Amino acid sequence: MHDHILLVDCPDRKGLVHGITGLLLDQDVNITKNDEFVDPISNHFFMRTEFKGNVEEAVVVDQLQKYLGKQAKLRFNPNRKKKVVVLATKEHHCLGDLMIRNQFNDFNADILAVISNHKILQSLVGSFGVPFHFISHEQLDRSDHEETVIKALDIYQPEYIVLAKYMRILTPDFVSKFQNRIINIHHSFLPAFAGASPYRQAFKRGVKIIGATAHFVTNDLDEGPIIFQDVIRVDHRFSVNDLSDAGRDVEKTVLSRALRLVFDDRVFIHRNKTVIF
Amino acid sequence: MHDHILLVDCPDRKGLVHGITGLLLDQDVNITKNDEFVDPISNHFFMRTEFKGNVEEAVVVDQLQKYLGKQAKLRFNPNRKKKVVVLATKEHHCLGDLMIRNQFNDFNADILAVISNHKILQSLVGSFGVPFHFISHEQLDRSDHEETVIKALDIYQPEYIVLAKYMRILTPDFVSKFQNRIINIHHSFLPAFAGASPYRQAFKRGVKIIGATAHFVTNDLDEGPIIFQDVIRVDHRFSVNDLSDAGRDVEKTVLSRALRLVFDDRVFIHRNKTVIF
Amino acid sequence: MHDHILLVDCPDRKGLVHGITGLLLDQDVNITKNDEFVDPISNHFFMRTEFKGNVEEAVVVDQLQKYLGKQAKLRFNPNRKKKVVVLATKEHHCLGDLMIRNQFNDFNADILAVISNHKILQSLVGSFGVPFHFISHEQLDRSDHEETVIKALDIYQPEYIVLAKYMRILTPDFVSKFQNRIINIHHSFLPAFAGASPYRQAFKRGVKIIGATAHFVTNDLDEGPIIFQDVIRVDHRFSVNDLSDAGRDVEKTVLSRALRLVFDDRVFIHRNKTVIF
Amino acid sequence: MHDHILLVDCPDRKGLVHGITGLLLDQDVNITKNDEFVDPISNHFFMRTEFKGNVEEAVVVDQLQKYLGKQAKLRFNPNRKKKVVVLATKEHHCLGDLMIRNQFNDFNADILAVISNHKILQSLVGSFGVPFHFISHEQLDRSDHEETVIKALDIYQPEYIVLAKYMRILTPDFVSKFQNRIINIHHSFLPAFAGASPYRQAFKRGVKIIGATAHFVTNDLDEGPIIFQDVIRVDHRFSVNDLSDAGRDVEKTVLSRALRLVFDDRVFIHRNKTVIF
Repeated sequence: MHDHILLVDCPDRKGLVHGITGLLLDQDVNITKNDEFVDPISNHFFMRTEFKGNVEEAVVVDQLQKYLGKQAKLRFNPNRKKKVVVLATKEHHCLGDLMIRNQFNDFNADILAVISNHKILQSLVGSFGVPFHFISHEQLDRSDHEETVIKALDIYQPEYIVLAKYMRILTPDFVSKFQNRIINIHHSFLPAFAGASPYRQAFKRGVKIIGATAHFVTNDLDEGPIIFQDVIRVDHRFSVNDLSDAGRDVEKTVLSRALRLVFDDRVFIHRNKTVIF
Repeated sequence: MHDHILLVDCPDRKGLVHGITGLLLDQDVNITKNDEFVDPISNHFFMRTEFKGNVEEAVVVDQLQKYLGKQAKLRFNPNRKKKVVVLATKEHHCLGDLMIRNQFNDFNADILAVISNHKILQSLVGSFGVPFHFISHEQLDRSDHEETVIKALDIYQPEYIVLAKYMRILTPDFVSKFQNRIINIHHSFLPAFAGASPYRQAFKRGVKIIGATAHFVTNDLDEGPIIFQDVIRVDHRFSVNDLSDAGRDVEKTVLSRALRLVFDDRVFIHRNKTVIF
Repeated sequence: MHDHILLVDCPDRKGLVHGITGLLLDQDVNITKNDEFVDPISNHFFMRTEFKGNVEEAVVVDQLQKYLGKQAKLRFNPNRKKKVVVLATKEHHCLGDLMIRNQFNDFNADILAVISNHKILQSLVGSFGVPFHFISHEQLDRSDHEETVIKALDIYQPEYIVLAKYMRILTPDFVSKFQNRIINIHHSFLPAFAGASPYRQAFKRGVKIIGATAHFVTNDLDEGPIIFQDVIRVDHRFSVNDLSDAGRDVEKTVLSRALRLVFDDRVFIHRNKTVIF
Repeated sequence: MHDHILLVDCPDRKGLVHGITGLLLDQDVNITKNDEFVDPISNHFFMRTEFKGNVEEAVVVDQLQKYLGKQAKLRFNPNRKKKVVVLATKEHHCLGDLMIRNQFNDFNADILAVISNHKILQSLVGSFGVPFHFISHEQLDRSDHEETVIKALDIYQPEYIVLAKYMRILTPDFVSKFQNRIINIHHSFLPAFAGASPYRQAFKRGVKIIGATAHFVTNDLDEGPIIFQDVIRVDHRFSVNDLSDAGRDVEKTVLSRALRLVFDDRVFIHRNKTVIF
């Protein structure tokens, strides 16, 4: 008896839950958790099912695809670990947290490598035995730099790319090559303070709460589907530096919470939003 | 096409989702939301389904009961407003909030009356045109007082009794008469500071967070199934009075959040816990 | 022995705390709480002192003004209740909460009247015995409508005007007439979703948290000094209506927390921010 | 011009702020931040002052002690880094976070060594170049084990001992040797679920929120002065393991927030509570 997770999303029609659970029952599996949601605006159906049983993934997928039609997207996950590469720049807090979690298997993922445009985090990454690729952006135009990054990524064939405070804007080519597979942590409670220097903006505006947002990356800067957000209280005594210090803890927590959701196959992307079970 | 909500809970067995959705499909209804949970320890199945369709409630319940067996508990709700009586003592904050919400139909419920062992809240309740029963506990023993309260309750035949800071302990007889139908707001983050004077206890202990807990009432004081909890930060500058003042806002919010969940038929009671969809 | 609160703000210079506390000690008072803050950018000094003693307010203010110079702003409050008028439109949740609090003296304020451009809240306000002025905006241009509102306000000479979901934009003339004295509740976590229909904006963006912001009103719409903010979690299941429903509770809480801070003389306005002790 | 922090606590009497700021002004320093609090029950005075100036610490302390009397406790901190030793057992999440923060100077502290009664965290600590002492408790009685731990501590002479999920109960001798200098992270929202297996207790009780508490260690288990607490929401779907997983993130965050407060000299201990500026 193995544990399985099945994710289905397709246009809604009557009887989908009944039909899908019927197909699964024919395989003699035991459903242990089930979540569905129908988006009332797009009339789109989402379902995540955890079940136990000795089934052939290929057989189930084949039957479901026939039943649901070509439009249906199916993800089938016998609890596989996701392959991940992290991109970082100079800041250690998110990356350090990911390294510790990776080392102790806190995530349903393996971090295969870290790529950075600076050398400063090399020894941190090295101390965890994770390959570190220093790919400077200096004297390179954006697409040349990205080409070198892509070559490094090609070594690892990651399913997900995590931007752990990677302070460079990605080109549309890069983003579309890894569509729905790049996760970024933005150091503000989006859509407030999108763009550069959010803590400076927050300081100027005198907000009483700051936050962080983990989201999938699209070509609209800071506009991609939001996965998780959190906030903390601040007050008039916080300088820009104090806001950054306090914010780093939230960034770290928010990124790891979002990654846990993604790596546990709980997240659907639908248009510019997420459906999360 | 009417909106319906169906709640089912029964011992789990293979194929329940498939079977129940099949019975509903036979009635030609359209399922718009569906949540299930199987408690892995008791192996108990919970399902809440929202659907649209012109169905006979009695027919559906009958078929489901036959299919699921006698142990299954079914609740069928064509969005009926719940009938509610509120018990209060002297404090106005929770009751005032409920009066406003009742007046403007914020809840899926009708408050039919307020019963209190003090007169202080009479004019507040009266100004909203809600019947107010003053039933003093003075010179009465506990069971005699409760008998009079029960007579007043009998007039209204409420489905739920809300204790909005009702500062009297109910007898086992009273509690068992309204089993799973009495909701209380306790002014602490249970199980911390159960019993009397929680803010005084919190002050003595020097906690940095205080909270409130809405729960169903059982015969174990402050030990019933928890519906909702929330907290706020406090610090060394808070006196016992300051804690009470700040706590009142949380009590009010927590009670109304819990009631919304109950009145919208989102809450199952299972042993000493709740399952909430 | 009376309780006093003194608020001082002025350009910083060496020895201010020593000087001010010295002047107070000469009056033989007993300082029970003291908070200071020096804004490091503007080099501006803020101090809030609670003390007990039989002092002549006029004497203390006179001595302090001489010592601190003309630029210093002094507020002296022997725990006076603030005089307040509330402006509302159609929504009852914030206004209802204020009415209850006013009725039971939860605030250090007296609500002298409610002014609305709709009649819908008249009976609510009436049931609390608070004067209600219906001043329709129909067939009036903005400044003519405001002129009538100002005439009604002139009757009450309020120190603060609370916009409890008043859905009209105030003219610069109105705002400058009541500078630093108008408090608004905005139904979003500003600066996210400033302007109209914030819940619709939040729904479109797919945020995982929504909030509310209480702020002083300036002529830059939704850009005034923020007093208090709070948030709650939401998810993909929330429709625009669900977001509004959930948001109303936060709006209500945030407005009352902000008003408590203002009415307890804890808030300084400094440029476009607040300093709150 | 150096930055200084001065902490004073002593029995309250009239004019203390004036007197202390006067003594500081005589040294020609510039006060940049000042916080005071008088505990109204014990009538005890607390003051934390940040100032700039070229002063002799010894001179200031001497004058203040004379002025305030022998009962006054003075801490004077020219922004020195605190010397810290961490005790751990098997869990990596708190320790890993501390290692990363130590490596990158996120704290106003130096972690001089880690002592553990298990070997499992040795390589983690070693990879950061921090000395690791494995001191097994097997075949030793409690006081013999502690004696060996104390010998290791004596090498480093730490000002603070941090229990980063150290799963052994300390003897009264050990605690009194390091009075007010041992900080523990408890994996519950104290006083709820004190003692062993808090997540198992939380699961049984069906709470909707879990938390963590950082506190100073006294001889009353889990009863010492609380420094910081935080919580997260959970629901019926969380198993005991899920609660532990989710709780670990809160434990980590709460411990680091508490340590930042302590290492930045913001915390007074007064009887069984903390006063934190």
